[in-house]
Amino acid sequence: MCFKDYDFLDKLKEECGVFGIYSKDNHDVARLTYYALYALQHRGQESAGIAVNNNGTINYYKDMGLVHDVFSKKEINKLSGKAAIGHVRYSTTGESKRENSQPMVIQYKKGQMALAHNGNLVNAAEIRRQMEEDGVLFQSTIDSEVIANLIARYRKSNENIEDCIAKIMDVIKGSYTLVILTPKKLVGVRDKNGIRPLCIGKLGNSYVLSSESCGLDAAGAQFIRDVEPGEIVVLSEYGIKSIKTTTPKKASVCLFEYIYFARPDSIIDGASVHQSRIEAGKILAKEQPIDADLVIGVPDSGLTAAIGYSMESGIQYGQGLIKNRYVGRTFIQPEQDQREMFVRIKLNAMRNVISGKRVIMIDDSIVRGTTSKWIVKLLKDAGAKEVHMKISSPPVKYPCFFGMDFPSRDQLVAACNTIDKICEIVNADSLGYISLEGIKKTPVGSKCEFCSACFDGEYPMEVPNKGDKFSCG
Amino acid sequence: MCFKDYDFLDKLKEECGVFGIYSKDNHDVARLTYYALYALQHRGQESAGIAVNNNGTINYYKDMGLVHDVFSKKEINKLSGKAAIGHVRYSTTGESKRENSQPMVIQYKKGQMALAHNGNLVNAAEIRRQMEEDGVLFQSTIDSEVIANLIARYRKSNENIEDCIAKIMDVIKGSYTLVILTPKKLVGVRDKNGIRPLCIGKLGNSYVLSSESCGLDAAGAQFIRDVEPGEIVVLSEYGIKSIKTTTPKKASVCLFEYIYFARPDSIIDGASVHQSRIEAGKILAKEQPIDADLVIGVPDSGLTAAIGYSMESGIQYGQGLIKNRYVGRTFIQPEQDQREMFVRIKLNAMRNVISGKRVIMIDDSIVRGTTSKWIVKLLKDAGAKEVHMKISSPPVKYPCFFGMDFPSRDQLVAACNTIDKICEIVNADSLGYISLEGIKKTPVGSKCEFCSACFDGEYPMEVPNKGDKFSCG
Amino acid sequence: MCFKDYDFLDKLKEECGVFGIYSKDNHDVARLTYYALYALQHRGQESAGIAVNNNGTINYYKDMGLVHDVFSKKEINKLSGKAAIGHVRYSTTGESKRENSQPMVIQYKKGQMALAHNGNLVNAAEIRRQMEEDGVLFQSTIDSEVIANLIARYRKSNENIEDCIAKIMDVIKGSYTLVILTPKKLVGVRDKNGIRPLCIGKLGNSYVLSSESCGLDAAGAQFIRDVEPGEIVVLSEYGIKSIKTTTPKKASVCLFEYIYFARPDSIIDGASVHQSRIEAGKILAKEQPIDADLVIGVPDSGLTAAIGYSMESGIQYGQGLIKNRYVGRTFIQPEQDQREMFVRIKLNAMRNVISGKRVIMIDDSIVRGTTSKWIVKLLKDAGAKEVHMKISSPPVKYPCFFGMDFPSRDQLVAACNTIDKICEIVNADSLGYISLEGIKKTPVGSKCEFCSACFDGEYPMEVPNKGDKFSCG
Amino acid sequence: MCFKDYDFLDKLKEECGVFGIYSKDNHDVARLTYYALYALQHRGQESAGIAVNNNGTINYYKDMGLVHDVFSKKEINKLSGKAAIGHVRYSTTGESKRENSQPMVIQYKKGQMALAHNGNLVNAAEIRRQMEEDGVLFQSTIDSEVIANLIARYRKSNENIEDCIAKIMDVIKGSYTLVILTPKKLVGVRDKNGIRPLCIGKLGNSYVLSSESCGLDAAGAQFIRDVEPGEIVVLSEYGIKSIKTTTPKKASVCLFEYIYFARPDSIIDGASVHQSRIEAGKILAKEQPIDADLVIGVPDSGLTAAIGYSMESGIQYGQGLIKNRYVGRTFIQPEQDQREMFVRIKLNAMRNVISGKRVIMIDDSIVRGTTSKWIVKLLKDAGAKEVHMKISSPPVKYPCFFGMDFPSRDQLVAACNTIDKICEIVNADSLGYISLEGIKKTPVGSKCEFCSACFDGEYPMEVPNKGDKFSCG
Repeated sequence: MCFKDYDFLDKLKEECGVFGIYSKDNHDVARLTYYALYALQHRGQESAGIAVNNNGTINYYKDMGLVHDVFSKKEINKLSGKAAIGHVRYSTTGESKRENSQPMVIQYKKGQMALAHNGNLVNAAEIRRQMEEDGVLFQSTIDSEVIANLIARYRKSNENIEDCIAKIMDVIKGSYTLVILTPKKLVGVRDKNGIRPLCIGKLGNSYVLSSESCGLDAAGAQFIRDVEPGEIVVLSEYGIKSIKTTTPKKASVCLFEYIYFARPDSIIDGASVHQSRIEAGKILAKEQPIDADLVIGVPDSGLTAAIGYSMESGIQYGQGLIKNRYVGRTFIQPEQDQREMFVRIKLNAMRNVISGKRVIMIDDSIVRGTTSKWIVKLLKDAGAKEVHMKISSPPVKYPCFFGMDFPSRDQLVAACNTIDKICEIVNADSLGYISLEGIKKTPVGSKCEFCSACFDGEYPMEVPNKGDKFSCG
Repeated sequence: MCFKDYDFLDKLKEECGVFGIYSKDNHDVARLTYYALYALQHRGQESAGIAVNNNGTINYYKDMGLVHDVFSKKEINKLSGKAAIGHVRYSTTGESKRENSQPMVIQYKKGQMALAHNGNLVNAAEIRRQMEEDGVLFQSTIDSEVIANLIARYRKSNENIEDCIAKIMDVIKGSYTLVILTPKKLVGVRDKNGIRPLCIGKLGNSYVLSSESCGLDAAGAQFIRDVEPGEIVVLSEYGIKSIKTTTPKKASVCLFEYIYFARPDSIIDGASVHQSRIEAGKILAKEQPIDADLVIGVPDSGLTAAIGYSMESGIQYGQGLIKNRYVGRTFIQPEQDQREMFVRIKLNAMRNVISGKRVIMIDDSIVRGTTSKWIVKLLKDAGAKEVHMKISSPPVKYPCFFGMDFPSRDQLVAACNTIDKICEIVNADSLGYISLEGIKKTPVGSKCEFCSACFDGEYPMEVPNKGDKFSCG
Repeated sequence: MCFKDYDFLDKLKEECGVFGIYSKDNHDVARLTYYALYALQHRGQESAGIAVNNNGTINYYKDMGLVHDVFSKKEINKLSGKAAIGHVRYSTTGESKRENSQPMVIQYKKGQMALAHNGNLVNAAEIRRQMEEDGVLFQSTIDSEVIANLIARYRKSNENIEDCIAKIMDVIKGSYTLVILTPKKLVGVRDKNGIRPLCIGKLGNSYVLSSESCGLDAAGAQFIRDVEPGEIVVLSEYGIKSIKTTTPKKASVCLFEYIYFARPDSIIDGASVHQSRIEAGKILAKEQPIDADLVIGVPDSGLTAAIGYSMESGIQYGQGLIKNRYVGRTFIQPEQDQREMFVRIKLNAMRNVISGKRVIMIDDSIVRGTTSKWIVKLLKDAGAKEVHMKISSPPVKYPCFFGMDFPSRDQLVAACNTIDKICEIVNADSLGYISLEGIKKTPVGSKCEFCSACFDGEYPMEVPNKGDKFSCG
Repeated sequence: MCFKDYDFLDKLKEECGVFGIYSKDNHDVARLTYYALYALQHRGQESAGIAVNNNGTINYYKDMGLVHDVFSKKEINKLSGKAAIGHVRYSTTGESKRENSQPMVIQYKKGQMALAHNGNLVNAAEIRRQMEEDGVLFQSTIDSEVIANLIARYRKSNENIEDCIAKIMDVIKGSYTLVILTPKKLVGVRDKNGIRPLCIGKLGNSYVLSSESCGLDAAGAQFIRDVEPGEIVVLSEYGIKSIKTTTPKKASVCLFEYIYFARPDSIIDGASVHQSRIEAGKILAKEQPIDADLVIGVPDSGLTAAIGYSMESGIQYGQGLIKNRYVGRTFIQPEQDQREMFVRIKLNAMRNVISGKRVIMIDDSIVRGTTSKWIVKLLKDAGAKEVHMKISSPPVKYPCFFGMDFPSRDQLVAACNTIDKICEIVNADSLGYISLEGIKKTPVGSKCEFCSACFDGEYPMEVPNKGDKFSCG
């Protein structure tokens, strides 16, 4: 069996990451994209790809696997040009397929075009069905192919790509951060609700786009600003140009970008991801105080909130769990008790730190709860007197239609159980979650509003088949 | 550097092979297709793929490489269903790409469809350009994508797939053998000129289609008949159905199928490939008699004609050249004289057979002539007193637009040189070719007429940009 | 170019890890060894191997690579038996070779034997030379082969393996932790100085041996005790037996096991590795106080000491550097400035944590200093007002002959430069090291004495060719 | 399941091939060895290796697999030096192991030494047992390790390697062709009975050694002469030197080298392998005449004898069976009837050649008979009126102790059955073998005598445990 970290730690799955550069300084654009994809690797670990515009011809390389599996020096060196886009992907469908890897590179009446997409369209199926009726065929199941077909069909011969995209943004609904490479331009798009992030950086005289600011850092670029919800930016020989489409009154930035998805060193819409996790820990300490001897975090994603909890509560922070960095994708499972064994190999409790202590264990979320109980057991076996589990996000109860991969609702432990019941399932001495109000305050410095649909069911737009994911088994 | 046999032996390159089965007997269709692709492997060695219809859902697996590289038991076992198509491919474009591997599997208004194609459309670019104007995008450079788009656009909702294909056959021009898998049917198509072969076999109550009859043998099926030029056959629950479209007066079956491409154990349009090569040797012996001690063939493809030459001339046949079966794709080249070294590793002359003899060396064609001179040298170094080269096809002077991959005309040794000059280049004591009239008589038993355009420039249809390939450097 | 973490972070290299189990409870011994090797992976990342005794026949599998690269389910399942040993290796010679991977499995007069070794013999070359004179040949360059030959030569026919080993321990000098598998026994050995660790655990009625206690945890075993310096333990059907050989008055446990090598969740000779690092941070804070705003650690190995420094000094601990977990072995280097780029991809500074702050940056050692300057630059580029570097080990000035892989002395920055000069090289605002007295106090709870030769040149035994590594270029 | 050609065709298995070069002309010795190993690949397909002497240091590379799998340009380029030896291996033990691949490279009192061996010692186990008693350990199961240990033990400090080898040749019994690389010399050895071949070639001013003359051809060298039974040749700066040890009165060259093992283009002890197979066919025609319409051979090894049979009998030779060159090692087996299916994929009958004919089918041997019956069936299914099987070697009834890998005697169809019974098993219309007198006459031009033990049980030396392989189940 093959486990990923998010499987093991029972996390929501990452979605995708995009990057783009249009160089006016003769940069090695493929190599810079490759570095940036390393920095964005946490957003997608199933496929990686880079497309490069070489004097109007778009060459590309993509395959299943991590960035360092997919690209060797040979592939990078073949990709010369002045503009590039890159993509890392986590597939939300059960089986990941090579056909679905990105960037998607197509040929249409205006020449070649490469697209990379982070997000999820809620009306892709409907658009697809209509286009099929009109005689279009599809070779993959990714939204990018829908968007590419919309451009191929609706772009007029005397129309700019950006004007065409602006029109299409009135048609497609959902979350979409796009980078699109054409023979002359590199276009970046953030959906009208701003659900997924995208930011702009500068490297010498050249501009770059990245899902997160950590991608800019890896490429050596300076952060300039976030792309605004509904904004289209066009990078070309003439520098950068912005087009703002009409948007809803409020943005709806995904809160889970701050809670779990984004890298702590990224800054999204003005708020530091790391700082927002510290804040979440502090607020959690205020909302869920408890008398204890030690605060620990579940590595890696729970560590920052644990530090925040410690700061606010004054309770000592300690390294109570050690994570084995070497457990790979091909871990061989024992026949039985596999999750317990896997937890024991992947994590170890620091007996001398924990023994005899009342421990507050901070994690950023509980999805199925299947792993949490083994971690609690690990701590108790190591001598913890009490284990109090505190979660730095509210209970996840509703499906996401914007790119997070959820288990079905009956597997979502908070959707179908009370907090007391969950506490019983994970066998903790107490369990507490941060409040919805609390979590919304954590992205300190952001002027955006947030999508909290997975916590409260308030979707920022109409979503289809909501019922399909709603039953508790 | 990486050599293929046809590179080494300086041969025209194979094109593609297709296979299909619609089982009414619960066969393991993927496995039978896998066996058949082994038998058709000589037609394409760059990619292989199988698509299977499993109760209306089409699953597939394809990748770059030989059949035994691409498929493991795991992949084959995943492909269960009642109908399957398979494809082996040699790409005629410079670089072979995974995106171009087949079968192509698409989704359109009528559900899924898988296509595999052997041949070359002469008006694909023109159709593509028109479709792009109409808003269609393309993700590959293969003709199959053009055909799939034609079906997606022009199939009416109440129309059979075969009727739609019949209409499309009036639009597409060139050579095309197609197998098309739909949720309910398996359709086989042979172009109106019959340039590429396709035949029908029976296995129990089920029907199969194969580029060559050797594919039927490998699947354990009995040969029934060839698909006729312009014929569409439909395999389904209801058995087999035939539709005949209007065709040109005469077929134009490719002569090189008999000369080099097809396997000797195949029977195409009623003529045994092996027998046609024996015939070619016999006719060559009549047309190009010479006094000598020994007839040998260049392995493997020249051996049969050599036997024919020996039969007719009464000159002793001998094994004068041994081929090393183990030289693989990754042979490491010496820095200099690479072709000579490669020839010496790949072939060895039988000194004790050849020494002191006047040798007639039969080969089936000369493309560039670059290897021939090294083989002549090998024989002379082994003591041959004279080396007379006799070629069992006429001089190749004109480009093929129907699926054979030619070097540019200035590399085609017979296009730009007299026979005397070629003889001088390869350093043989004499050189002779079979005549055009002669070669046309070799497919004994066939009632078809043949395409001889590469010999005489008489194309069976209008071809585009004929001039592009015509200059001698 | 191919970087390992220790290359990148400019660390001393790990040596090896060993594990053994003799099961009386029908455990799947290969699988448990596999889990334990995962836990010991940090001790050696170049090869991995497992040997199993199956009713007197020893089968094994080993190869270059990480545990999860080397072993698939297929290999593990082939290794059935009642006793097993495992090994992970880092080769101290320039090129790692498959021939040197362990366990070494040999056949001699008493049947088969498998050996795995952690450490370095100082008189191996001398013994080897003598044995060669006597007609022995060697097939590898590892000490295990020397030890195996000693056993093969000196074991008398009526002698126990353990008695033979006891005699050999008077011959071999240096550091050696051994696990030896024979058709009837599993023998564990710790060298007379106890330089490398080894501990005993219990799993049901069965005993296990592990380089570190974290290996016991991974196998689900309970820690029993450390093997004592000079002790031989024999695991068999009859349980566990101990033989104590004469030892020097004091043990000489390697301090770097606590500083860097061992996993923080291991307990060695009674002292918690994690606690000793906390202590090191605290002592460093007392010895090297400085007024600053923030304490950060260089991930991962500097983090714990940073927490200790923060505890003692009262200066806020923060996450100032983020490490990218995905940068793999095949990272493609930029042409120039490669180390800077690699540092930037591998680490990122948390601008909003650091900006405007006077930062104390804790690391556990400086080897060459080549990376440190780039980390300091990273922090300053992120806005750090001051960067004070504090090192939780004393300056490394002398070569190790007991298994740590050192660069040559002229590359060892502390061997040839004053602290002021090093501070200048790394461009920090100040630089301080923990004292030798200080570091010796950190393994709280250990009753052992320590080897501090790399800091002070006081070797626990005579070492050969000391001069060879001593010049500063 | 994984089939090799010899499995499929039910052949005796190849043993090993060796090659060596000592260059005085600055040849790229590794590359020439690589080319030669390609030519010797038929002698061993399980592992390949090359060792090179670079100014007294021996570097090497070896691994499991075919020559083109094992060596990339990178490996070859690393192996620079002035002398090299190479080896291809087929392991005669059930499982092939990397530890057993050759050349074996060792270090002993006189420095490094590399050995490669073709053959089988009959007293290796006995010598090994004695050496183990004396304290020697073994790491593999190959005879080379026994020989290397004999050299390491018995070579005196002032003794030449060749004098030491001469002494050892009085100790070891069996078949052995050796090439041994030392820091100053390259030594070639052929056993006293001359069971396995070895020949000498010249390339410029340099000498080369090869198991077969085809290896010389591939390296571009001229054949000089065979190494004589019992001869030691020493290649060095001083050219070539010969030492002749005392030998038995008659040589005992293995007849199967001519019948099946060696390449047809090789000349062994003055006799052409190809010519000897033609002779075998002719003699078979005389001894086993039958009235028929067609003579065919089972490709590839039966083809030459078939031509000889045709020549002598005057019955037409034809290509009745076609072999698929693409069926690889990883062929996926059908669940049942696997051998029939495999035969059908691997071979195809030429219906139009065979149909209605009385066919004489020539093969060079029958081992188990399991494949022969499927080939007979293939021919009959293709319409053969009669199938007469004629075998160009006598019935194999006795085990070989000199390097051929035999099935156990109860699997050897001729050991336990009459010819009539075998004919019934393979379902042929008649079956005939060449006589022992006949086969001995086939190596025309050889002055050697032959080992015919597998046919008549007359071993050229005492062999151990003869009885072990003798029972019929």
